[in-house]
This record gives sequence, C-alpha cells and structure tokens, in this order.
Amino acid sequence: MANKDMFLWWGSGSPPCWKAMLALAEKGLWEELPNELISFSDKGHKKEAVLKVNPRGQMPTFKDGNNIVNESSAICMYLEEKFKSQGTQLLPDDFAIRAQIYQYMFEIDNIRSNIMMPIVVYKMMTKKEVWDNDMLKEKIEPARKEIDTWNNYLKGKTYLCGDKFTMADVFFFPFLAFLVRMGLQLTSRPDLKKYYTSLCQRPSVQATWPPHYKESEGKDWLAEL
Amino acid sequence: MANKDMFLWWGSGSPPCWKAMLALAEKGLWEELPNELISFSDKGHKKEAVLKVNPRGQMPTFKDGNNIVNESSAICMYLEEKFKSQGTQLLPDDFAIRAQIYQYMFEIDNIRSNIMMPIVVYKMMTKKEVWDNDMLKEKIEPARKEIDTWNNYLKGKTYLCGDKFTMADVFFFPFLAFLVRMGLQLTSRPDLKKYYTSLCQRPSVQATWPPHYKESEGKDWLAEL
Repeated sequence: MANKDMFLWWGSGSPPCWKAMLALAEKGLWEELPNELISFSDKGHKKEAVLKVNPRGQMPTFKDGNNIVNESSAICMYLEEKFKSQGTQLLPDDFAIRAQIYQYMFEIDNIRSNIMMPIVVYKMMTKKEVWDNDMLKEKIEPARKEIDTWNNYLKGKTYLCGDKFTMADVFFFPFLAFLVRMGLQLTSRPDLKKYYTSLCQRPSVQATWPPHYKESEGKDWLAEL
Repeated sequence: MANKDMFLWWGSGSPPCWKAMLALAEKGLWEELPNELISFSDKGHKKEAVLKVNPRGQMPTFKDGNNIVNESSAICMYLEEKFKSQGTQLLPDDFAIRAQIYQYMFEIDNIRSNIMMPIVVYKMMTKKEVWDNDMLKEKIEPARKEIDTWNNYLKGKTYLCGDKFTMADVFFFPFLAFLVRMGLQLTSRPDLKKYYTSLCQRPSVQATWPPHYKESEGKDWLAEL
C-alpha cells in the first residue's frame, strides 16, 4: 500500500507518466497513492502549484516525503532502489543483465527520434492541409526499421530481457501502447504483437491504463508503417 | 589499469562517447584501454566490423569480455555497478541523493531538445545561405532559458550535486564542453563558468579531451545565447 507521504502529478497517456505509474504499480504502490491527474489541454502542467514542485512544468512529478523527483526515468530508478525487494524486482542483481536492461531503457530514445518526433509530433503540431507528404514519406523507412528492430529484440522471448518482466518493459511498453494508439499495425510483427497482447493483460498495465484511451479513439497516423 | 578483455569504439567530440570515456577514466580504466577512434566523417561507424558489435552503428560501443554495451548511459551505469568501489564512486549509496543525480542525468535531454537539435544540428545540416533566420531567432529564448537553468543548478556548488563529482557531472560536462566549442559564452553565467573552468583541469577530463578539439577551431553558432 502506498505511503501517504507520496504524491504523483501525472498526465493521461503520456508515455513518461505511464512509465512512472507502471513502476509504482509493480512495486505495489499505485493503489491508494495520493495523486492528481493534470490536464495537458488545460495547461495544468504550467499552473503555479505544479511549477512550484516542477519548475520545468513537465509531467510526471513525484514526491516522497521531502524528496521530489521530476523526471520519469529518475522516478523509476528511485522506486526500484528504495523498494528493491518489494513487489517485482525490476533490475536483477547480475550486472551483465542490468547492462542489457539499461541498454534497452536508453535505446527507447530511438523510438522518439525515429517515430514520435518526425511523424507523430509533426502530425500533431501541423494542420493536415499543410502536411509535407513528400517529407513524411521519407520518414517511413527509418520508422519502419525502428519498429522492426524492437520486433527482432522480442523474437522467442516473453519480455525484452527474456522470461522476467524488468525495467526495460516498464520503459518500453508505454511507448509501444502509444504507437498502437497512433495507428501502428502489429499484424506483420508477430513477436511485438504477442508481447503487446500479453502485456495488455498484466495487472499493473490494466491498473494504470490511461483513462482517456478508454474514452476516445486514437489516430491512424502510423497506419503506413 | 584496464582489463585486456575490454574494448571501446568511440568518436572524437561526440558527447555520448565522451561520457563513457569519462566514466572509464574516473574508474581508472581509460589508461591502456584497447580502443579504436572511429572517424564519423569517413562513416567508420557504419563499417561492417562496427555494425557487427553495434547494429545501430551508433557510437560509443563497449565490450567487456562477452558483454557488449552499445549505449553511452548504459555503459556508464555498467561501469559504476561493476567497479563500484574502484576509482571515483559516481553514485553514492543514499537513494535520495542518487535520485537527484538520476534527475540531472536524464534532464540533460532538455539540452538536446532545446539547444542541440534546434540550433546546432540545424546549422550543421543546413547550408548557411538558406538558414531560416526568423525561425532560428525563435529558438534563442528557450535555448537561453535552458542554459540559465543549468547555471542556476550550479549556484554555490562545486559540482552538480554539491561537493562531490558524480555521474551527473559525467553526463553533463561533455555536453557543456560541446556547447562551449559551438560558441556558447559563459561570461554572464558565472556559476557555469567556474564549473567549466574547474572541470577542464580535472585529470579524467584532460585524459579524455577530444583530439580534434585540440587541432581545429569550433564554431560561433551559439554566440547569441
């Protein structure tokens, strides 16, 4: 059960927020955690009360007593280190396996630079009438290659690092789910599909599923991948 | 002294490569480390021998016996965990202090998104004759705010986390040195200036100073910040 001194400010559907929530849930801390859902569309993350704890106005922000941690990866590491033996151990003791997990955790940045920024964020920020379709066409191949890389990583495995759910999955799944919501098709990527379907049933994932994913439709922006 | 089973592939002046090299040097592993300086301009990072160990063709790549670690942050974490009590301890035991260090480590990403991508990479990739100067002008304020944030973080401190050099500095310094080479002025940022000047004298920094920084001039692309 969550400590009453803890507090999480979060936004619905933001992969960094979901990462932190997944780590909390895996540690058995999500249920009854004092928290506030911040509305990005109302610019809630730029309001004074939030800026006081998080000067950058970026979500998520986590407070545990006097410790304020403002960055999703740092929150996940903090939770794993403070609650190492509580709930799921997300970083095993063996440092070679940990190195592999760290590599996946940080490689996810390539999803941002190869898929999210050039296609999703571009389409989000630009009126459809003025989309530069020639430019977008050039972005498809690197984006496809990126997603296929992750399909390959999962070949013959249940989780990214084998048969145990780890921090690599905490970092990866929210991005994968976001891409699926943006129209990514998994039919021709059987390993990714199996992984996605299986993780959708995981209790921590179900408990933290973004509320607005349930209430509204996604996009078809990645359907061509 | 370095283990003969270790090997580092690196590129000169790339902040991610320099991060890994700094961690190696702080652990007393850089001297006599078998390594290869890869030339980015010759596309050395896309050559077969490199792609074999690093399918993404991104530098740095580190090998320690059978363990291959392909991502700079993961290499740093691996070195700190395997050689915890050797050389400088880059992550202290206290998990609240570690959380602060993690936050700085990951917040550096804002330097990339607010300064490096919109200004440095844009100017690097675009012929000067066709620079969109109006667009560049809009990027100055967020970039300035970003660098001032780091100046504030350093107020009254020797290192990012106080009086001890930590992983936060390993991650931050190579980016700061890169920005300075790209023309960033520190005169109006006394805390950053003091930090930069002091770290330039640090043995690990001197031992890993990018060779081509010594041989050629930088740019004035950030002079307006």
